[in-house]
Amino acid sequence: MSEPVDPSGLTVGIVGGGQLARMLALAGYPLGLHFIVLDPAKDACAGQVATQLHGEYDDPDALDELARRCDVVTFDFENVPAAALEHLAAEVPVAPNPRALGTAQDRLAEKTLFRELDIPTPVYAAVDSREELSIAVATTGLPAVLKTRRFGYDGKGQRVLRERADLDAAWAELAGHALILEGFVPFTRELSILAARSADGTTVFWPLVENVHTGGILRLSRAPADAEALEATARAHAQAVLDALDYVGVLAIEFFDVGGTLIANEMAPRVHNSGHWTLEGAETSQFENHLRAVCGLPLGSTHAVGYSAMLNFIGRLPEPGPFLATPGLHWHDYGKAPRSGRKVGHATLRTDQPDELEHALARLQPLLAAD
Amino acid sequence: MSEPVDPSGLTVGIVGGGQLARMLALAGYPLGLHFIVLDPAKDACAGQVATQLHGEYDDPDALDELARRCDVVTFDFENVPAAALEHLAAEVPVAPNPRALGTAQDRLAEKTLFRELDIPTPVYAAVDSREELSIAVATTGLPAVLKTRRFGYDGKGQRVLRERADLDAAWAELAGHALILEGFVPFTRELSILAARSADGTTVFWPLVENVHTGGILRLSRAPADAEALEATARAHAQAVLDALDYVGVLAIEFFDVGGTLIANEMAPRVHNSGHWTLEGAETSQFENHLRAVCGLPLGSTHAVGYSAMLNFIGRLPEPGPFLATPGLHWHDYGKAPRSGRKVGHATLRTDQPDELEHALARLQPLLAAD
Repeated sequence: MSEPVDPSGLTVGIVGGGQLARMLALAGYPLGLHFIVLDPAKDACAGQVATQLHGEYDDPDALDELARRCDVVTFDFENVPAAALEHLAAEVPVAPNPRALGTAQDRLAEKTLFRELDIPTPVYAAVDSREELSIAVATTGLPAVLKTRRFGYDGKGQRVLRERADLDAAWAELAGHALILEGFVPFTRELSILAARSADGTTVFWPLVENVHTGGILRLSRAPADAEALEATARAHAQAVLDALDYVGVLAIEFFDVGGTLIANEMAPRVHNSGHWTLEGAETSQFENHLRAVCGLPLGSTHAVGYSAMLNFIGRLPEPGPFLATPGLHWHDYGKAPRSGRKVGHATLRTDQPDELEHALARLQPLLAAD
Repeated sequence: MSEPVDPSGLTVGIVGGGQLARMLALAGYPLGLHFIVLDPAKDACAGQVATQLHGEYDDPDALDELARRCDVVTFDFENVPAAALEHLAAEVPVAPNPRALGTAQDRLAEKTLFRELDIPTPVYAAVDSREELSIAVATTGLPAVLKTRRFGYDGKGQRVLRERADLDAAWAELAGHALILEGFVPFTRELSILAARSADGTTVFWPLVENVHTGGILRLSRAPADAEALEATARAHAQAVLDALDYVGVLAIEFFDVGGTLIANEMAPRVHNSGHWTLEGAETSQFENHLRAVCGLPLGSTHAVGYSAMLNFIGRLPEPGPFLATPGLHWHDYGKAPRSGRKVGHATLRTDQPDELEHALARLQPLLAAD
């Protein structure tokens, strides 16, 4: 047994000052935590609610200052340069650990890990030349998706290949990056699991979430998903990944449900958009449990409280009136300027009965602003 | 119909920077609101999560700056000097309005209003001299409670009179203040109601809360109280007060339950300690609905989600481990230094079944730190 931790007055550093850092800070203040976010952007939205260090992610002075002023450091995005991670980890506890972030940064390493752990994945092949692309297509068949191994998010750095004629254009666009070709998965639906793991190995799981993406961006999550038969498998997969990486904090894994079989699509080594519903829809939110894990505190209950749906606000916020007037609706404005394709907020609808949820969703979805 | 309000980027000023202001700010950031608190204390705990103006409550320059930088101003305590209120209200919308604060600042004005509205109160009499004290005792009988009309909280500024021999000592201690003598009420239990009212008169009520005070300080609240037969009367009383004062924001009224009759003890023109359970135990918290009312937004549902109990942490926080390890427990550290009798935090326990609540309470209450 380690010594009991007193969170009161601990300072948590967060690399990245976007909406995830903002929601982490808001969830952590009641625990008595303080926050410092590192972000080069003048208008980083977490800087509105926490102390911000303005600095590049690979600026050694900024990293040193963050390490010096914080008791523990975590991340609100995974694409931090490896050298920066090592720099930080030499000076201050970092969670999740650099190996976990390194694995999740690289689609090839991630899928290789899944396969080692007997977690089904789409058929895939590394692609480093035009010739390898042709060979890879022979493995995956068409359609397939050509992706950059690194720095992709919200559908960026991806090209769908529907026929052989698409290969040259996709190659022209993505050549120069390390790539991976993934076989297209004819999925029934998309599901994700969120889990939190402590340093002592204790792990908790929220119920599976059903997600709807359009244009590569998450639009809607429903939780708990109607997927009880898949919970045990999803948890076993997540547990295997967490243990293999000696992971501390919240991890999300996105799955394709292919007629009752879970195919792992990707993972995120951080709090995740498909877990935002936990702020109101679960006894303990993903944000609070991430902080509890990172700070060495006992994890909170992940019990779902009723039925929840999360609607992302993309591009700009809708007119708030009809949303705020909906019983059980919770509004989350991230304090970001409008911009096409940008996640600027979300709403969670929480109800005691599933049909109430669907009625309210049907009324609100048409009111969402265009992207 | 007034124009729809867009909360995004509105700035709310709060006079007072204690835990109520802190929880208001944390509840308001997801609405897109910004916050500036005015407090002379160097270590005001809301200043850890919001911009703080360091200034006295009657400093005209500080008040001018607050008015200039904010779209609306509210309060986290009611004992603001009347002149400061008028100063502010001349420059910026203030909610609740100065008349409501003025009434709640003065126990005599408050009880006079209750009586005008046919809300039962304890027997009471104004006391401005030693002679009036003797006459008042003849009205109220003994035991009775001698209280300062203004600036009392958490049992401060009060003396219980059990026999005639107590009068001289009580007078010696409290003389010099405007006083009120209140007849002792042999109550079965203490209940409070919280309500939020918008400028257009729309009013919502949370369910009645049962409160346990010791030494004049709230220790424990349970919500919803087992008091369905009293809900309608409590709501009618609160509605009468809110309408009479043209009130905007959250109001709390504390009642004695005397064998099924509600006797109004006092009111608080602000979010209230007996409403802290609403952060997790109600669909919309008192903090969020106060802000919605003050900013002209639709009020949120006050529906209770399961069964809640709130434990106050007085003097210092208990060792957090056993609390954080309790399923359904939510920890609230106010970021305040320990001090005897000071409210430094609270925990809310939320469960789906009432017996779970009582079992957990029985285990946790002995772990509370001494005052």
